[in-house]
Amino acid sequence: MQMLNAYPRTLNVDAGVLATTIDALNDCAQACTADVDDDLSERNVTELIKCIRLCLDCADVCTATVRVTSRQTEFDPNVATSLLQACATICRSCGDECERHAQMHEHCRVCAEACRRCEKACRELVGAIK
Amino acid sequence: MQMLNAYPRTLNVDAGVLATTIDALNDCAQACTADVDDDLSERNVTELIKCIRLCLDCADVCTATVRVTSRQTEFDPNVATSLLQACATICRSCGDECERHAQMHEHCRVCAEACRRCEKACRELVGAIK
Amino acid sequence: MQMLNAYPRTLNVDAGVLATTIDALNDCAQACTADVDDDLSERNVTELIKCIRLCLDCADVCTATVRVTSRQTEFDPNVATSLLQACATICRSCGDECERHAQMHEHCRVCAEACRRCEKACRELVGAIK
Amino acid sequence: MQMLNAYPRTLNVDAGVLATTIDALNDCAQACTADVDDDLSERNVTELIKCIRLCLDCADVCTATVRVTSRQTEFDPNVATSLLQACATICRSCGDECERHAQMHEHCRVCAEACRRCEKACRELVGAIK
Repeated sequence: MQMLNAYPRTLNVDAGVLATTIDALNDCAQACTADVDDDLSERNVTELIKCIRLCLDCADVCTATVRVTSRQTEFDPNVATSLLQACATICRSCGDECERHAQMHEHCRVCAEACRRCEKACRELVGAIK
Repeated sequence: MQMLNAYPRTLNVDAGVLATTIDALNDCAQACTADVDDDLSERNVTELIKCIRLCLDCADVCTATVRVTSRQTEFDPNVATSLLQACATICRSCGDECERHAQMHEHCRVCAEACRRCEKACRELVGAIK
Repeated sequence: MQMLNAYPRTLNVDAGVLATTIDALNDCAQACTADVDDDLSERNVTELIKCIRLCLDCADVCTATVRVTSRQTEFDPNVATSLLQACATICRSCGDECERHAQMHEHCRVCAEACRRCEKACRELVGAIK
Repeated sequence: MQMLNAYPRTLNVDAGVLATTIDALNDCAQACTADVDDDLSERNVTELIKCIRLCLDCADVCTATVRVTSRQTEFDPNVATSLLQACATICRSCGDECERHAQMHEHCRVCAEACRRCEKACRELVGAIK
């Protein structure tokens, strides 16, 4: 937020929505990276392969998306929108899978919540761009 | 290709199309990273701001996309398709911008070609997934 | 912190120091990505080339470092230590350069502070690993 | 190599050594990303946890290192050297672990070779910088 306030020009989208999305994307990337590692330390790791795989994807896509949406100079609405939609898609898939393990593993429950918040934030930012 | 041949299960998409796309994505990420740096070393850098910005985005999205598409275990067609479409969108925008500077800067010409090849490869892989 | 508390095994380093470092790395990556973009929007961009370049490096290295240090399963102290030292080195260089523009550009001032905090956190985590 | 030849200024290091290192880093990042996925598809995944973990680290560090070393404008020898040393350290650890599974898994054998080549290339580039 401090960095957004210091932006020298006018932001292309609402500063509050943008700040919320940036935070949600960073949180989700961090939660997914940690959840992969938590899964790898569990005894029933063979049941968590899909969870690991989707969390790897989700961390990578959130990391790319937070960088692209943070760039406000020469902002390209088409690029941002299609990437945010792809990010919402992976957050949905990853959140669904994490939720399946939420009762058994606290780290999957926390990660599922981060995915849900991030999916919602991405869709709201798409709405704010249009 | 050596790694694709060593995959223990059956790949979810045609190995040849997948290998071509992975190569195109890695090439494009590398070209865009280098083109940003080349642009920053030019005297007319102020005319290259949009080129720098889109190349930064394109490198980040290609890097995420090559990781996601390389993962064949528990492959999620919806996730891969939406990300490849977003990647094609940024490759198109970035290729268009680089092309504008292709006559003046050889590095932008080479980068524009990498973006075109990558956009085409992403669309072909989307077709191979369906 | 919620994710660290949910880790199924015993952490390899002090949880508080680790959490502080993870936050500092994420903040620094975000600040550097935004500062590149802010620099690109300034009229005197030609005087900010070194700042842009080091912020690009710093964002990339912080992003890799936060991922590696977040992984506590099969933790490799040599790998973590050498990467944290490299990260402290780039944070130092980037912070020095941002500080040169801190009086003229608020975004460089904020980014310099994020780099300083991150450098300090990386060094403290190295101390906690030994 | 086409991009290196198009660089507008004089490169800070020998073009041949730089090109070899950039290729080795990209190959290693790709091999490690694929090897994680291959490991996740194996029945004996529980014996491959350390391999998965180090390959995740190695892919992330190689990706950051290839970006930093590709940037020749305002090149910072201290930053490049310390990052290349960290990258050689992770390539060594990851290559050692992959080699342990090389006889059982072809994908680990290929990945171990990519790690060895990358470690060697990083050390040679450090020598070329000095």
